[in-house]
Amino acid sequence: MVTKNQIKLVVNLKQKKYRTQHGLFVVEGEKLVNELLDSGIQLLDLFVDTEKKAKHFQEAKLVSKANMKQMSSLSNPNGVLGVFKVPSPKPTGEDDWVLALDAVRDPGNLGTIIRLCDWFGIKYLICSSDTVECYNPKVLQATMGSIARVNIVYTDLEAYLKQTSLPMYGAFMDGNSIYQQKLPTKGILVMGNEANGISETIGGLITSQISIPQYGETTAESLNVATATAILLNEIRR
Amino acid sequence: MVTKNQIKLVVNLKQKKYRTQHGLFVVEGEKLVNELLDSGIQLLDLFVDTEKKAKHFQEAKLVSKANMKQMSSLSNPNGVLGVFKVPSPKPTGEDDWVLALDAVRDPGNLGTIIRLCDWFGIKYLICSSDTVECYNPKVLQATMGSIARVNIVYTDLEAYLKQTSLPMYGAFMDGNSIYQQKLPTKGILVMGNEANGISETIGGLITSQISIPQYGETTAESLNVATATAILLNEIRR
Repeated sequence: MVTKNQIKLVVNLKQKKYRTQHGLFVVEGEKLVNELLDSGIQLLDLFVDTEKKAKHFQEAKLVSKANMKQMSSLSNPNGVLGVFKVPSPKPTGEDDWVLALDAVRDPGNLGTIIRLCDWFGIKYLICSSDTVECYNPKVLQATMGSIARVNIVYTDLEAYLKQTSLPMYGAFMDGNSIYQQKLPTKGILVMGNEANGISETIGGLITSQISIPQYGETTAESLNVATATAILLNEIRR
Repeated sequence: MVTKNQIKLVVNLKQKKYRTQHGLFVVEGEKLVNELLDSGIQLLDLFVDTEKKAKHFQEAKLVSKANMKQMSSLSNPNGVLGVFKVPSPKPTGEDDWVLALDAVRDPGNLGTIIRLCDWFGIKYLICSSDTVECYNPKVLQATMGSIARVNIVYTDLEAYLKQTSLPMYGAFMDGNSIYQQKLPTKGILVMGNEANGISETIGGLITSQISIPQYGETTAESLNVATATAILLNEIRR
């Protein structure tokens, strides 16, 4: 049985302030829920809206389709909804490449970037405090389960960069060509905001400004931050 | 002055069937409209909703904010709306790399891919007939003006691939590592559908199956088609 309070909690978790307050987030869809269960992230509650789905998840609570619609952030709820505990961030290692984001704001971009970290084996993603929250439903949907395998830390990016001994690379429109760089085996790659790039404060700390050369005439203004991240992580790992 | 019929035409152009029927498409925003004007794509009509904006565009018709809201596809119309003629496709060259899409369905992905073609100097983008239409407002918004600089052709992809003499590369999950390939100076890169990849019919025509190696353990299921395209075009051009 599901109580009114349980439903209310899930509805509240659509808002960032309640996610932060309770240290909880919501994931929808059988596949995504399974990936999180496998990853060892702690489950608080699991809701399904048919007896058939309940058979796949021993721990599930059966709710009406109306309740599911109320709790879901999707326009077409898929009938499986899990409430998970935000994992406590692990201490960030300095033994490999780290990706850092300076005020990335678009949920789809962050979701794609988390998926890229997973693909390219980047274990630590450092986000400035004003980067979009990674437990935002739109981010979670775009990560395709990769959220379970990347350690994401929100922090004061300036303070973080000031204390690290890793070499710092930042993506700038007029940086040196990434093709001409000899990249070390570990370092930090910093990517900036969609509209403004890397902020002045953060830019001042970066040791190497890099860029992706445009081919032929200069026409396109810039690359989207997620596609630029894809190309730079590929250059780092190739 | 703007007539009821002119407004009705623009409203109708929100639908693909009318865009196809009239050979017209709509672009919103001063920047995007200017890029299209510069590109030589033919303008049919231009609407603005303030006297001030009218000063920037000699050819503009002034409409009320209510009319602009009616015509716009945006939740917050930005007050500049141009109706352009779909350019007739130029014959596709075989002197450089060509990108071909097999049933890419997401407007954001197609928009990002068009922007990537512009960045990497890919002049020809061949789309299978079931690829999302490039004059869809969501695609246009995501291209950031690059639509004006890439020649996009919708065609029977199978027939196109059967008649070309260019070597054909296709992105597959289990293809050969792109890092180990010696890529020619010209060819066709085929990218597949978001959920199903390259179809069987098209796959049968491809001479080289390629893939982007995952780093470390295999965890992430796949890369988004736009980010995979970013990485592969970068590999081709670097």
